[in-house]
Order: sequence, then C-alpha cells, then structure tokens
Amino acid sequence: MLPLTRGSDEHVIRRPVHHRRGALRPALAARVQRAVLGIACWLLLAAVVPRAQAEDGYDLWLRYRPLDAAQAQTGRSHVAQLVAPAATPTQRAARDELRRGLRGLLGADPGTADAVDRAGALVVGTPASSAAIARLGLDLDGLGDEGFVIRSVEVDGRAATVIAANSDIGTLYGAFRFLRMLQTRQPLAALDLRDAPALDLRLLDHWDNLDRHVERGYAGQSIWDWHKLPDWRDPRYTDYARANASLGINGTVLNNVNASAQSLTPMYLEKAAALAGVFRPYGIRVYLSARFSAPREIGGLDTADPLDPRVRRWWRDKADEIYRLIPDFGGFLVKANSEGQPGPQDYGRTHADGANMLADAVAPHGGVVMWRAFVYSHEEPEDRAKQAYSEFVPLDGQFRENVMVQVKNGAIDFQPREPFHPLFGAMPDTPLMMEFQITKEYLGFATHLVYLGTLFEEVLEADTYQQGKGSTVAKVIDGSLHGHGLTGMAGVANIGSDRNWSGSIFDQANWYAFGRLAWDPHASARAIAGDWARMTFSNDDGFVGPVVDMMMGSRQAAVDYMTPLGLHHLMGEGHHYGPAPWVEGGPRADWTSVYYHRATPEGIGFDRSSGGSDAVAQYADPVARVFDDPKQVPEDLLLWFHHVPWDWRMRSGRTLWDELVHRYSRGVAYVRGMRETWSGLAPYVDAERHAEVAAFLAIQEQEAQWWRDASIAYFRTFSQRPLPEGEAPPPESLEHYRSLSFPFAPGN
Amino acid sequence: MLPLTRGSDEHVIRRPVHHRRGALRPALAARVQRAVLGIACWLLLAAVVPRAQAEDGYDLWLRYRPLDAAQAQTGRSHVAQLVAPAATPTQRAARDELRRGLRGLLGADPGTADAVDRAGALVVGTPASSAAIARLGLDLDGLGDEGFVIRSVEVDGRAATVIAANSDIGTLYGAFRFLRMLQTRQPLAALDLRDAPALDLRLLDHWDNLDRHVERGYAGQSIWDWHKLPDWRDPRYTDYARANASLGINGTVLNNVNASAQSLTPMYLEKAAALAGVFRPYGIRVYLSARFSAPREIGGLDTADPLDPRVRRWWRDKADEIYRLIPDFGGFLVKANSEGQPGPQDYGRTHADGANMLADAVAPHGGVVMWRAFVYSHEEPEDRAKQAYSEFVPLDGQFRENVMVQVKNGAIDFQPREPFHPLFGAMPDTPLMMEFQITKEYLGFATHLVYLGTLFEEVLEADTYQQGKGSTVAKVIDGSLHGHGLTGMAGVANIGSDRNWSGSIFDQANWYAFGRLAWDPHASARAIAGDWARMTFSNDDGFVGPVVDMMMGSRQAAVDYMTPLGLHHLMGEGHHYGPAPWVEGGPRADWTSVYYHRATPEGIGFDRSSGGSDAVAQYADPVARVFDDPKQVPEDLLLWFHHVPWDWRMRSGRTLWDELVHRYSRGVAYVRGMRETWSGLAPYVDAERHAEVAAFLAIQEQEAQWWRDASIAYFRTFSQRPLPEGEAPPPESLEHYRSLSFPFAPGN
Repeated sequence: MLPLTRGSDEHVIRRPVHHRRGALRPALAARVQRAVLGIACWLLLAAVVPRAQAEDGYDLWLRYRPLDAAQAQTGRSHVAQLVAPAATPTQRAARDELRRGLRGLLGADPGTADAVDRAGALVVGTPASSAAIARLGLDLDGLGDEGFVIRSVEVDGRAATVIAANSDIGTLYGAFRFLRMLQTRQPLAALDLRDAPALDLRLLDHWDNLDRHVERGYAGQSIWDWHKLPDWRDPRYTDYARANASLGINGTVLNNVNASAQSLTPMYLEKAAALAGVFRPYGIRVYLSARFSAPREIGGLDTADPLDPRVRRWWRDKADEIYRLIPDFGGFLVKANSEGQPGPQDYGRTHADGANMLADAVAPHGGVVMWRAFVYSHEEPEDRAKQAYSEFVPLDGQFRENVMVQVKNGAIDFQPREPFHPLFGAMPDTPLMMEFQITKEYLGFATHLVYLGTLFEEVLEADTYQQGKGSTVAKVIDGSLHGHGLTGMAGVANIGSDRNWSGSIFDQANWYAFGRLAWDPHASARAIAGDWARMTFSNDDGFVGPVVDMMMGSRQAAVDYMTPLGLHHLMGEGHHYGPAPWVEGGPRADWTSVYYHRATPEGIGFDRSSGGSDAVAQYADPVARVFDDPKQVPEDLLLWFHHVPWDWRMRSGRTLWDELVHRYSRGVAYVRGMRETWSGLAPYVDAERHAEVAAFLAIQEQEAQWWRDASIAYFRTFSQRPLPEGEAPPPESLEHYRSLSFPFAPGN
Repeated sequence: MLPLTRGSDEHVIRRPVHHRRGALRPALAARVQRAVLGIACWLLLAAVVPRAQAEDGYDLWLRYRPLDAAQAQTGRSHVAQLVAPAATPTQRAARDELRRGLRGLLGADPGTADAVDRAGALVVGTPASSAAIARLGLDLDGLGDEGFVIRSVEVDGRAATVIAANSDIGTLYGAFRFLRMLQTRQPLAALDLRDAPALDLRLLDHWDNLDRHVERGYAGQSIWDWHKLPDWRDPRYTDYARANASLGINGTVLNNVNASAQSLTPMYLEKAAALAGVFRPYGIRVYLSARFSAPREIGGLDTADPLDPRVRRWWRDKADEIYRLIPDFGGFLVKANSEGQPGPQDYGRTHADGANMLADAVAPHGGVVMWRAFVYSHEEPEDRAKQAYSEFVPLDGQFRENVMVQVKNGAIDFQPREPFHPLFGAMPDTPLMMEFQITKEYLGFATHLVYLGTLFEEVLEADTYQQGKGSTVAKVIDGSLHGHGLTGMAGVANIGSDRNWSGSIFDQANWYAFGRLAWDPHASARAIAGDWARMTFSNDDGFVGPVVDMMMGSRQAAVDYMTPLGLHHLMGEGHHYGPAPWVEGGPRADWTSVYYHRATPEGIGFDRSSGGSDAVAQYADPVARVFDDPKQVPEDLLLWFHHVPWDWRMRSGRTLWDELVHRYSRGVAYVRGMRETWSGLAPYVDAERHAEVAAFLAIQEQEAQWWRDASIAYFRTFSQRPLPEGEAPPPESLEHYRSLSFPFAPGN
C-alpha cells in the first residue's frame, strides 16, 4: 500500500519501514549509530522522503531492496562501474534494469562508462555492441539468440564481470540473471555461467476478452485497457514486459482462446500493435487467438471452409495486414471444434486442414500456428479423457512445419491432479507444445495458497516410456525425444489489473515458476520456490526454509481437500467455485460431477481400465500396464483409472472410504499448519503483505474445511459407512451444502 | 507509478524525484547546499530509501507533500504538539490523519501529548473528550453533530489552536479542514473558523453490480471485492473512507440502482456489514439499493404488492435483519418502475405506496428511503422530459417523513447541459434530494478533461422562482425554501479499482467538487477547483491559475463539441460512446437520437414550448415564460425547448447553422488549448501524472474532433447549407462515421 494506507505510527525517521520487521533492521540500526548524523540530515530525509514505501506486491520479484551492509559492499566491489551499450531499445532496457537493480540492491548507482577504467567493472554486450567483449573472444557458440554467459574475466588487466551474448536480448536475459544472483545472494567471484533456454516459445496465454473480462481470471480485469489503446500505453505494460523478460518469457497471446473475431479487425490490430511496440525491446512477441469463423464474421464470406480458396486468400491477406502493423508478430493460437467454438470440422475438414491453412498464411512471415488439442464434441460418446488422443494421433505427420499442437498437461482440464496427457510422446512426427494453467481455475482461485511448481514438475518429469525409459514429458516438449526443432510451452496467465498482478502474493510464485520451467523444463520446483521466496520476501534462512517447505506441500494439500485419490471434476458448476460432487443432469454428461466420480453404494471411481473405457490403452507400456492394475497404479490416481469398492484395502492399511476421509482431513490440517507457519514468519515480512497472506490463508482454511465437509456429507450417502475414529462429522446437512449458491463468483 | 515503472535516470540522491520538476526544487537545492552533509548521510539515504515514490494518483488530494521551508517552519510553530484524544475509533482516525498529514507537510511529527505543555499546541476534541476544550467554553451550539470550530486560543496561558466539535465526527471533519488549510497554504494565525454541513445526507451512489461490473463506470471494476468479503477487508476500503470523510461525505450506497435482490440475502448483508465496519469510524453509513421485487425473488412470496401484508412483513423482517448486522444502516435507495425495473405500479399502486411501505420498515431503526424520480415507462407517450413531474407532483404530501424523492439535476439523463429539473421547487411538501452524476457517462468517459464543478454549480444556482426570485435549486435542496428538516445530495460515483480511483487524475476533481458542494451547495466551483489543484498538484501560482482557468471552461467545451445550443442525447447507442445523432428505430423512440434533435430540412430542435409538448409549463413563471420564448431562452438551451429554422438569427449575428458549426469548432479548439496549457505546466507536475494527463488530452482532442466532424456531416444533410467561411469540412463521409462500431466500449 502506498502512503494513504499506512498506519499512523510508522514514522519514517524513527522506523525505516522497509525493514521495520526485517532481518536487516539490526544492521541498519548499527549503521545509523555509526554515522554521524546531524539534524540537517534528518531534515533532509524528512523533506525528500515524506514517507517510506510500503509493499503492495506490485514490484513482484523485482523489488531490489537493499542488501545488508557486507553483501552490498561485496556487490559494489564487483560492480564498481557499468560498461553497457545503450544504442538500441533492448540495450537500454538491459542497462536501465541493471542500474535500477544495482541502485536498489547496492544502495548506490555504479555509474556508467564507455570503457573499463577501473577494477570491478560489469561489462555487458555482444561482440557487435561492445569492443571489450569482442576482444575477449568468448565462446558464444551454441547460445543461440537468447543465451548468455556471465563470466569473471580480466579486461585490459582489470578484474571484471562480463554479461555477453550473441544478441541484445541475450544480454537482457543475462542482466536479469546477474541481478537474480545478487537478489538471492549468490557469490559473485570466479563466475562461469552459461545458459540458454531449452524451448523456443515461452508464452503466456491470456484468456482476456475485449471487454476486459478475464475468463478464469481472479486478479481483476484484463491488464489490456483495450478501449484506451493504442493512444494510451499504460506504464504497467512496460512492467509486464520487464517481469516476463526477467524469466525469459518471450511471447504473449493477448486474447482469449474463446476468441472474438473483432480482435482481427483493423481497429484492434492497431491496439495489438501498440502493445507489441511496448514489448519489443524486451524480446516479447505478440500472438493472437484466431476465431476460425472470422472470414464469415468480419470478412464478408459465407464460409470459413479451410479448403475454400476465398477463405485461404482472406487469411493470407489478413496475415499480410497483421505483419504490416506488427513485423515480428508471432502467430495464431486456435481453439477449434471444442466447447462450441467453430472449426474445420464444421466443413467436414480435419484439424490438420484447419491448422495448415492458417500456417500457410503466416509462413511467409515466419509465423507459427499453435493448434490446441483440447477438443471434445457433443457427438463423441466415449470417455472424454480419450478424445484428444483419438482425434489427433491419426493426424500425426499431417501438419505443416510451422504448426505446433498445444496439449494441456492432462486429458480432462487442469484438475488438481491428472495423469500426464497420453498425447505426449504419441505424436512423434508433430511438435507438441505444453499448455499449463497458471491461473487457479480448479485450485482455489486467488485466495488459496497452492504452489504450482510441483504440479508442473510432476508432469514434466513423468515418463511416457514412448521411446523406452527416460522418455519424459519434458523431453517430448523440449524436442529432444523426437528431434523437433520447434518447441514451446504456454501458461494460461494469472495476471490482471489487481495491484499485485496475480490476485495474491503467492500466486506470483506460479507465474514465476512457469517462466522458469519454460526456460528450463528440467529445473527443480523447490529451487525455483527458494529463489522466488528470496526475491519476493527475504533471504533470511529462518524465512526461506519454512516458506519453501510450506509451498512444496501446498498442492498436495489442495488435492487432498478437494479431490483426493484420483477424483476429479467435482467443483461448482460454471464458476468452478467450491465443492459440488452432486452436479448431474444438464446439457451433457461430461459437464457433471457424477459422470466423473461414479459413486454407488458399491464403490467409487471412473473405470478407465482395459475392462472399462480402456483409456489406459492410450499410454505406452509399461505405463499402461501399471495404470491398468488397481494394485499397481499410484494411489493418487486410483479413482482416475478404477472403480473401486469402498472396502478396498489401501497401502496404508485403511479401507478406501477411511483413506478418502483421512485425505480430506489431512488437506485441511495442512492449511491449518500453513497458517501457523505464516503467523510465525511475521518478523520477516512487511505488515501489508503479511496481513493479506494471513487473511487469504484464513479463507483457504474455511474453504478447505467446506470442501472436506461437503464431500464427506455427499459420499457417505453412497458409502453408508461410519467416519473413521476421531474424524468429525460434517457440521451441516448435505442439503445445506447443496443449497449454497454463488451466482457472482468470479472468472466465469 | 511505483518503482517498477520509474525511468532509469531518476536517481534519488542526485535528483529528488518528488520535486525534480517542481517549484520546490530551488528551495530544496538551497537547503541541500546549506546543510553540511557528510557521506554517511548519503549512504543512509540510499539505504533507507532505495527509490523515491513516484506519483500515480492513488493519494488523491491527500498527498501531504512537504511545504517549502518557510511555510513548514510557520506550520511547525503552530503545531508544536498535538493534544488529541484517541479513545474511540473516530478519535484515532482524526489523530492519525493529523499525524500523517503534519508529518508529510511539515517534515516532522509534532508528537502527541496528553495536555498542553508548550506554546503552539493543536488541541482536538469535544467538551466530553477533552478537558482543555471543555474549559474553553467554546460556543458549539448550532454546529450539530458534524460541524466544528477551528480557532486560535490560549490554553493555560499558551497560544494554541483548537479543533472542537460536539462529536467525534465533527473533530474528524475539523482535522481534515485544518490539513486542507495547510495544504492550500492558508494563514494559521488568528483563526476563527466555524463550519457545519448544509445538508444531512451527503452520499455517493455506486452503480456497482455484484459481479464487480460498474454500470457507467470507467475506472476499472467495482472497488468492492464482493467475492472475498467479508473475510478480506482490502486496506483500500479505509482509504476510500478517508478520502470521503475529508470532504464530509457521510454515506455510500453500495450497489447499483438496477439492483440484484441477492444484495439483500444474508451472505451479501454480511459483506455489506464488513464494509460498514470499516467505514463507521469515518462517519460513513452504508445504504443499499433495494430491488422492489425482492420478496418474490428471495422471499418466497408470489407478490411484491406494497399493500400486501405479507410483503410488508417481509420488508419489516428484512429491515430488522439488516439492522441487527448494521446498527447504523442508512436506508434504501430505490429505482422503481423505470427502465424495466419492478415497482409498485406493477400492482396498480403508486410510487408513494411503494416508498411508504419501505419507509415503514426502516423507520423504527431511524432509516430513510430515497425514492428516485427518474421514471419513464413505455406506456407514456408524451415528452419524456415531462414524465417525472407528471408522475410525482400529484404525490406531493403523500410520502412518509423519512422518505426523500431523489431527482436528477435535469429531466432527461445527465446530459452535458440540461435545464434544471422542473420538479425542483414543485413539491413543497416533499423533501427533494439532488442526484448528480459524477461518472462521465455522457461527458467523455475517463479520458476527457471535463470539470463538473461548473455543471453542479449552474444547477444549484438556477432560480426556480417557485417562491419568487431567489428560489434557487440549492435552497430547495438545503431545505430552506420549504422548511424541510431532512436534506441530501447524492452523486453517482466515478470510483473504481483503477489505481487512480476515478480513471483519470482530473476525474478526481469531480469527486472532490461533488463532496465539497454536498457539504455546502452554495460554494464556488472556481474556489473548489483551486483547492483541488493545490492539493493534487502544486500551490505554485504559475500552475494554479492556468489549471483552474482550463478546468472552469472545460464543461462548456464538452457541450460545444458534443451537443451545443441545447441539443441532447445524440451519443452512441447503449454504451453512449462517441457521436451518433443518426440513431433511430429500436424498441422505443425516446432511446433514439432523432427523437431529441428532430432535424428536418427546415430546422432543428425539440419543441417543448407551449406550442409543442408544453414542457415549459412545468416551470414557474417567469422561468416558463423565458423558456417558452425562443428569443428570450438562453441560447445554450435554445434547441432543448424550440424547433428553430436553420437561418434563425443568433445573438452573435450568425445563422443557427453557422453558429452550430462555430460551437462545434470552438469546443475542439478549447481542447487544443488545454493541451497547450498542460504542456506548459510540465515543470510543476511529476512526470508520471503529467504524461497520463497529456495522453488523455490527446485522446480528448481526437474525440472532440470526431464529435464535431460526425455531427456536422450528419446535420448538413438536413441543413443543406455550406459550412461557414474557414470551417474545415469533415474529412470523412457520413457513411464512414455511421459505420464505426464499438462493441466493447466500457461501462455498458
């Protein structure tokens, strides 16, 4: 919060607000005591700085708060001067970010110089932009356009650190990496770091409508103020670009996959071009979701048949028009023939026909098409989990080179836990792109603390066995398994107009983790959480350890209190808020809850085994064999693949029913534990952010309890069994839980 | 913007950002030169203050930036210590605000004391809360609960300043007034100020839906985060209360007049109660818009007939329930039988029947009912401007004592200019409440700089002549004309989730002006603009003069470029964005443009004279006589009341057609002038706010030009006359302007 909200007793002079609860306070106090400070100095402080800046989360992980004295001194010795070119917008972005970060972290601007003239210079550039770097003859081969090296060297006999790359954008990424090292207190001596992204496309998908409503958004409105664009370019757009560039995210799909054709009209293309202009220096390309029926809706044609020459021409012309406005336009994302969206099947054509038509339109300009595999149509009667595989595997090899098929991590829809999608590894001749959901549509919206790094990691590390052991999803995605040159990962953004960007401070960690894993899908979720916690809050070990532990278990907790043991799709109808395992009827069976849990007096679970829908057959052996056997399948996926009697004996020794209740309660207890942990961390966190997180954790505990109670109240009508010893019965009747109504829940 | 957005070259040490362009800079620089500042001091500055605070408008007019040295010294001599009680929440709010403000303005916290022990104390309280004030024996009669005195006195032989009142809330208002005096650099010696609000109810009406969409809102979403309430109480709610209390606003209607019955369910009443709890210390009561059909929708009844005993009981029970949760609940606002809303006429009952039924429900708790007179039904075929008068005047005297009829300033709908509503003064036995619209539904949304103080003032100063000369609207509203004890003014809020609250910096001035005029409807719009400009930007005369001049003419400019000479209701359909004088057809004539302008090859204007719809007869003489005569009517209202030939000779000597074109162009030219003025004011304003205002003015100029060009292109098809010498023809065809479509314009 800015000054308007500060408490009355936060006197800036007597109590430096930045660290009034922080670990730096003693050090600061010591410095204060050491310094000979006359009244003039106090007056100046008071005059220049009427109030210290409170923290409201706007700064994300780029806070650049002061290091403690010793670290700052070490830092200053390694950055005694900054030698960085500023001839291009990207060069200026890198230099400005370094100055901003160093000034904040080290407490002093190192000053810039054209050449190294003292020890401890930080030298930034490419062989083309920096004579010093050219002379060093660094090995920059294999780094591509986006990689960089950070190395301790000597320049003209003086110790220096270089951030070098083949292109300006590589130096920008290197600059952010160097700042991260300072922020997380890495040693700065004898550096020899070499890094490049593992994936080509590292994108955010915004499900943002042109009226600023965000589908499944829980952080306010769309940050794109379409109405005022292109004339008003909110400074926030630049901060969005900075935050993304700090992670290596290099593209953004501006509009919802449930797209409006209006996005492709000249008026909106101009607006998109204005955003592209803001993002360009940060290496971020703009993409658009394309509505397949646009030729009919805004093109004056009577068809959108992808094989119709008029349609093909319309899209070619549209692509040409877009590239005139946005020369580095990235391409199209398409949701077709899914959940009522138009597509090539409306004309008896295949997904490949549709994708290739668009691919041909953008190919001359270097654009790509990301064609989503998330399809299910009303006509298909089989297990919804099988449909994407059934429709897409036969098309393998039929897509143009600039088409990627974008596959959600699981086959249903971003559930708290799903087995990895069977398409991964099953289309060797087609580059597959990962689609994760960063926004927590099914994981408690903005108030639940659920770190998704572990979810992402679990999927990426899953072994498909499609080319034998070690055929992990990450290797499918990074192209190494099947030798693809075009690779990518998309995350459905959790970004909105809320001051803290993501609806809560801890939801920022999910944006952060996505970006880090898109750069390196083999990275560790725990290490990423540690970096984020250090950059976002505090480097104090007394803080980092407990917070990272808490984050690492938080997703399992949400699985436990929402949908344990492989249950899925049991949330409120439409808005997806809260528990509703009783949902039935309606337009289609696979939009109900009962379709998925199939509880009866005998048992519970969706039989996808070889004796059931046989969805297991879509996996390679031995995965299929393991999933097919209720005794071998991971218990976390038991009810995903099997219909199991209530007295089924679990590995814990409990019956299935008892284990189910145990898991629900365990999830609630974990949240209670997070509240206790967080309460104890108050000394490390500014009051504003601490209070918000604490309030949200309280809401999470209430809602976790509600999920447990409502679920147990419902399922015990089937199990007909008593609760295990010591388990509290739901305090309300099932009728009560069923009666709750939330017509205005957000994100719908 | 917070640090994430600051330019890279704004080094806090070398350039104090607060005033790097400001008038204070030389003074600061001098102070810097005077002070003996060692390196230790610089280091401390750098460590404590990693960056100075940029301005993003969040602080509104409560910025409390440092006074210059001499003024601060004078200030400190008058506030050497603060003697203020802190036993109640409101007392703490007053004391905390003073400390916050004094610390910012004077550069030092005066410190608090229990009793006066030095010269220059600021003593705050009531005779009950402060022994010192009790001993002074101040004359506090007639100040009521909300008035205050600010006076230079002696306390125990020492010079002091007192802020005294009969109640805590009076002292809070006095505290804000004292701070305003400092902010606007009023002398602090020999003070003898006595003030109390002229109106009882000073309310904001939020047209906020429960899904956070704001009808006619251009500042983001609703600031009420309904989904997270009551558990999460955003600190912003407190700042909202502070800002309103600083103006004397003492009530807020939380939800849209197009109300959802859900607002009255227990779940939402708990949320409203949470907000009421935040606002209570600031003297702000919560009100709700009531949906008349709620007994059917959430009450299980089959009727909402106000004379049905079950309905009456349901509302009594509902009121009891509300007051249990919110003991100081203010009452209901109702839009009934208007634009499709349900109401008593659905059951053959009158507005009085409906209002009185609700009034009886809240009367035992001291609540009021505000019944809107903005009615027009599909069945009424006559001039829409006449309907409210026709329906309500016959009901005069039939309303309960705790009912106010809330009347918009004009009879159509918040048009850029309307004659005052004929109801004012025409219902002597009924207290009438003013409804202004602060949000700029018809005045350019958030991007147009249009100061509404002059619009409000024009209406309040209008003379109804209902009790002879001097029967101004202000005297109707303040109860003095007809001796009413219950008085009030409501403003449709322009507040949303945008960081700057109102969508633009200058729109904050309209919130400010409304609040000041609700406190004192006889206040001067120019003086208010001056205070606002000083508090929001700079006290420098080089700034204040030009900005106030620019503001004072801005509303006339909007009238000129949108709807000059009494034209009205010519905006885009539905969203009301941009010009659309061609709108015709549709469900009802009075939702079109052609209904209002009635242009033909012979002339233009709505004949409301005695020879036409005779709406003029709703006014008292001599107003009616003046309005009825096209030669006497103010030319600004000519086409409101008269259909006039194109060659009608105006007082300027021009023909009507030439004058019309002249006015359009004059409006555009004024905006161009504002851009130039603002450009020259850059030295006085921080870069962030200056850039935003400049960008919005550029949009305003574009849109003003568009209004002019489209309107001329359309009306010349009727006038069939050439443009006056020197007037540029519209650059595009009428077909072009008609083809423009804005399906996602905000606020609809």
